[in-house]
Amino acid sequence: MDLNLDLDRNVPVLDWEPHLSSRTAGMGSSAIRELLKLTQQPDIISFAGGLPAPDFFPLREVEEACRYIVREDGRQALQYSATEGHGPLKEYLAESMRGYGVPAKAHNVLLTNGSQQALDLIGKIFIDPGDYVLTSRPTYLGAIQAWNAYEARYHTVRLDDDGMVADEIEHAYQKALDDSGRPPKFIYVLPNFHNPAGTTLVQERREQLAEVATELSLPVVEDDPYGQLRYEGEDLPPICTYVPERTIYLGTFSKILAPGLRLGWIVCPEILMGRFVQAKQGADLHTGTFVQYVANDICQRGFLKQHVKELREVYKVRRDTMLDALTEFWPDVCSWTRPQGGLFLWAQVPQAIDTRDLLEQALEEKVAYVPGVPFYPNEDGGYDAMRLNFSYSSPETIVEGIRRLGRALKKALDQV
Amino acid sequence: MDLNLDLDRNVPVLDWEPHLSSRTAGMGSSAIRELLKLTQQPDIISFAGGLPAPDFFPLREVEEACRYIVREDGRQALQYSATEGHGPLKEYLAESMRGYGVPAKAHNVLLTNGSQQALDLIGKIFIDPGDYVLTSRPTYLGAIQAWNAYEARYHTVRLDDDGMVADEIEHAYQKALDDSGRPPKFIYVLPNFHNPAGTTLVQERREQLAEVATELSLPVVEDDPYGQLRYEGEDLPPICTYVPERTIYLGTFSKILAPGLRLGWIVCPEILMGRFVQAKQGADLHTGTFVQYVANDICQRGFLKQHVKELREVYKVRRDTMLDALTEFWPDVCSWTRPQGGLFLWAQVPQAIDTRDLLEQALEEKVAYVPGVPFYPNEDGGYDAMRLNFSYSSPETIVEGIRRLGRALKKALDQV
Repeated sequence: MDLNLDLDRNVPVLDWEPHLSSRTAGMGSSAIRELLKLTQQPDIISFAGGLPAPDFFPLREVEEACRYIVREDGRQALQYSATEGHGPLKEYLAESMRGYGVPAKAHNVLLTNGSQQALDLIGKIFIDPGDYVLTSRPTYLGAIQAWNAYEARYHTVRLDDDGMVADEIEHAYQKALDDSGRPPKFIYVLPNFHNPAGTTLVQERREQLAEVATELSLPVVEDDPYGQLRYEGEDLPPICTYVPERTIYLGTFSKILAPGLRLGWIVCPEILMGRFVQAKQGADLHTGTFVQYVANDICQRGFLKQHVKELREVYKVRRDTMLDALTEFWPDVCSWTRPQGGLFLWAQVPQAIDTRDLLEQALEEKVAYVPGVPFYPNEDGGYDAMRLNFSYSSPETIVEGIRRLGRALKKALDQV
Repeated sequence: MDLNLDLDRNVPVLDWEPHLSSRTAGMGSSAIRELLKLTQQPDIISFAGGLPAPDFFPLREVEEACRYIVREDGRQALQYSATEGHGPLKEYLAESMRGYGVPAKAHNVLLTNGSQQALDLIGKIFIDPGDYVLTSRPTYLGAIQAWNAYEARYHTVRLDDDGMVADEIEHAYQKALDDSGRPPKFIYVLPNFHNPAGTTLVQERREQLAEVATELSLPVVEDDPYGQLRYEGEDLPPICTYVPERTIYLGTFSKILAPGLRLGWIVCPEILMGRFVQAKQGADLHTGTFVQYVANDICQRGFLKQHVKELREVYKVRRDTMLDALTEFWPDVCSWTRPQGGLFLWAQVPQAIDTRDLLEQALEEKVAYVPGVPFYPNEDGGYDAMRLNFSYSSPETIVEGIRRLGRALKKALDQV
């Protein structure tokens, strides 16, 4: 082929704005995200990401599973496959979920590219422009990002140490109804070890939430990426135990196996499955066949149960280390949540400090976190808060990072 | 944990319809898709799917790459990663694309979950409800499915043996403008070995298309999944060679490596990349890290070039076998395209036969294809046409399948 092209010639720059959909207006990249790119510098201790500890990825098991799968099922594992997901993996997940209180059968499980895709598909099949979603304040950043792309609006309820304040749901519902003339599309709940707040919804509130949802005829999206990472106390029943007919439950391998596989799942009422399958087909045909086969092989060998036990021990130590370091190195005027599991805690600083400004000082001290504001869908709070991740860094690094953050905080307080 | 749950109790069934978004109305599953599920029965010869030949998946290379990656880069390959994609793979793709005439640099390449996700992201950032897309009739079914979810409408231009009739674009543009009061959002083109038609856009028409797009200020989506699978003739310059500033080019590993990895890519003007990254972040954070590392390892070893050469030889034989069998076993009143590459040809039967009805008779003869109608976005044609895939079945199976289809056709003609 001799195309004789001059690819380095000056290409005119087109103005794409008039061609874009109106939903792109809500999809802006945040200044904070830009700032957080700095946290990838190797000398910065980052509590910003939601990353699992890479030292505990099961490398040997992944290698063995890959070899086994290529040799035994290579031609199927590399081919196109069903939109719903790999049959044996759906069976495994359904059984595993049932043991955990989620009323799942293989035919109401759908594999997704991580839980983030589940959030996107939910947006696609539920949200019309201007529709309201009810959620806690703060709430998961990625959910806001997924649903802003469908032009969602939000009314929020308060969160305290016992999780989302279920008493406030009806009021938020009413506001959504008043503002848009139609009921909100669903309520979004992170019951276990909330991202970003670290709190757990107590059982009484779960029951209350299920009752209110039923009264208001409100679907529930139950996002549970960390449920199996509990470091103390007893498992609580998932909300879908109480209201399976109206709950879409989301799970993921990202925190218990490896996020780089991009594997999550939806458990939803059977009647809804066809909608999710249609949306998923249009979005990417199906989740990667190969990674599903690999994950299934690892699961079927019974490895995951033991692995999760190890992760619980590792992360419990890191959580405790962070809590102790906060007590030791931070000014008394600060406070923080004490999560029973998961990856994050939520810290509160004096109101005179804006954590977005503090981040620049923190980066000077070579330590990073995520400021609270982006977790408020209406940007009406979180100025004096931050999310801290304790799963990624080693205990020694956690101590040093919290010490540095304490130093930045004290400097900021001196300047107030 | 003792949840004391009765998961088998009768769960009430919720009416989800009032909760769904209005876009779900356009996302219905087709009757044909249901019919095609039958084609997975082992005794049916299926020309329906778009599946590559699994006997030629590079199993040894995938196994070796998996082992190498887990051992050398395991902790990175299993972790979260950049939304844009894996740096070295972007570099490889950019260089490889440049050699093929696509003006790519690593920073304007974005990895996607197969090309289907690229189509979805394009829908997300361009299409508002009621917007028009211009395309050929017939056109790729998956694109219609992706964009129907964004409530797109379509105006189409005719396709002949030289590909899309560029002369008709301005007229379609004008109709879209008249119907919606705004210009169509882009023109969608499959220049090489069109799915479903098998035709190739000749060079003169490529130039003409680029000129018309420039005159009308119209973006171009150039979908090129089969471009490297050419069995005769010379490569033609991609459309983005002529109008790089307005072209979004889509490529994929599905047909040259393995579809089960779910790996495709977008090459787009740098100014647009931020939009795609935002949309991709909300959709699923990033494409699987592990499969990107594996594909990159296979690419960097230089394996792909040799592999594609082998695939070309294999598929050329299958194409020729199908063309010969059609001549031998089909009634003279039928006709078909003669593709220079790709996976599909398009066959025309007498107008008295509706290929949707014929499919039932074909399934009785244990052979399957996709009827033409679903490839017409406005369902205004294709009644007397079908798409036949020649990549999946062995030459012997192709002969037998075409013989069976010929029998079904003759029976149907006898009944007319």
